[in-house]
Amino acid sequence: MSQKQGPRRVELVTKVLAANERAAEDNRRRLREAGIVLIDVMGGPGAGKTALLEATIPRLAAARRTAVVVGDIATANDGERLAATGVPAVQIVTEDMGGACHLEAGFVAAGLDRLDLGALDLVFVENVGNLVCPAEFDLGHHARAVVLSVTEGEDKPLKYPLAFRVADAVVVSKIDLLPHLTVDLGALRANIRRINAKVPIFELSARSGEGLEPWLDWLRGIRGS
Amino acid sequence: MSQKQGPRRVELVTKVLAANERAAEDNRRRLREAGIVLIDVMGGPGAGKTALLEATIPRLAAARRTAVVVGDIATANDGERLAATGVPAVQIVTEDMGGACHLEAGFVAAGLDRLDLGALDLVFVENVGNLVCPAEFDLGHHARAVVLSVTEGEDKPLKYPLAFRVADAVVVSKIDLLPHLTVDLGALRANIRRINAKVPIFELSARSGEGLEPWLDWLRGIRGS
Repeated sequence: MSQKQGPRRVELVTKVLAANERAAEDNRRRLREAGIVLIDVMGGPGAGKTALLEATIPRLAAARRTAVVVGDIATANDGERLAATGVPAVQIVTEDMGGACHLEAGFVAAGLDRLDLGALDLVFVENVGNLVCPAEFDLGHHARAVVLSVTEGEDKPLKYPLAFRVADAVVVSKIDLLPHLTVDLGALRANIRRINAKVPIFELSARSGEGLEPWLDWLRGIRGS
Repeated sequence: MSQKQGPRRVELVTKVLAANERAAEDNRRRLREAGIVLIDVMGGPGAGKTALLEATIPRLAAARRTAVVVGDIATANDGERLAATGVPAVQIVTEDMGGACHLEAGFVAAGLDRLDLGALDLVFVENVGNLVCPAEFDLGHHARAVVLSVTEGEDKPLKYPLAFRVADAVVVSKIDLLPHLTVDLGALRANIRRINAKVPIFELSARSGEGLEPWLDWLRGIRGS
């Protein structure tokens, strides 16, 4: 989405975003009527979004009837991985939609169409692996988490500021790898805070389970509209 | 760039790509006249593009007069890191250009404007950290490498096929972390081959230096137009 050079491009981008905003409002209305909370999970390729949801969903199962809408450019791999947690999982393949590098509210609406909304409390959206473009699109979500792996280094919040600016939570993933890396976690935290002073930061490992509890508590506290 | 739904978007995308192609041809002409090889390095955030170039540039110094054009949405961090290798480094900050999620040929031309082309043999472009959009834009390069970290998992070539389809080389980075990961390198290789049967694959660690020689040999073999 982010190529706004020239007046024609600015005009088109404005129209695309306005159409997306209407679709996002439609999603919010449907979710409100069904009493569902929608949480968008963003992050670059390999940040650990799917692994985070694989660890999260079973731990919420007692308290929340959950489903997932998963966006990828190609393959249904992530949808299949998440369906294995036992919850409904809808795969959106954007290659069928021109190869979109992000989800738009209309794609999420198509995902919601394929779910039994009356039987759900919580829907996760796993966005396309991209730390840039997804942040520009309102999906009708109630909260947005950005996932960043410790292997990606300290300066990513400064280099991809929009994703961190719009985030309601930052998940710093794969902390089980910290002993093998030279990354400075204090500097990473400070860089997140420079972009978004008050955002909650959850440092965790989906693989070991370390640090998951505060993240789960945060999720339980998100209210719908 | 990848949001082509609807006829107006398709029309605009076509025009943007046509303008980019003209700028790419201009770049190729300038590079040919100066006898310079241009290599584009793509990859997601934190894949290790800058670290790869930090390890690569000094090892080529005896044989190639090198410079770098670095694209980021925000910050000059990578340009500063690469300038520390002692070569000319031009930072393109796309936030000044609408926050573009990729480099276009015109941005690279602006980078070339700031270099003394008569004193160079090789220019690396480090693209914006994004495994999707950069692959759609011809920069006038002579070869394109995509960098994927072993921490990103086996299935990324299948999920982001275009970047791997257009790549002339795939660098599998951070192999020093393999003992601490469950990633299956054989499966990763097979997935790369499913998208691009003949592409050379270089498995290396910029940190330890392991595996760099075959990559350097490949770079030395790239010819200009």
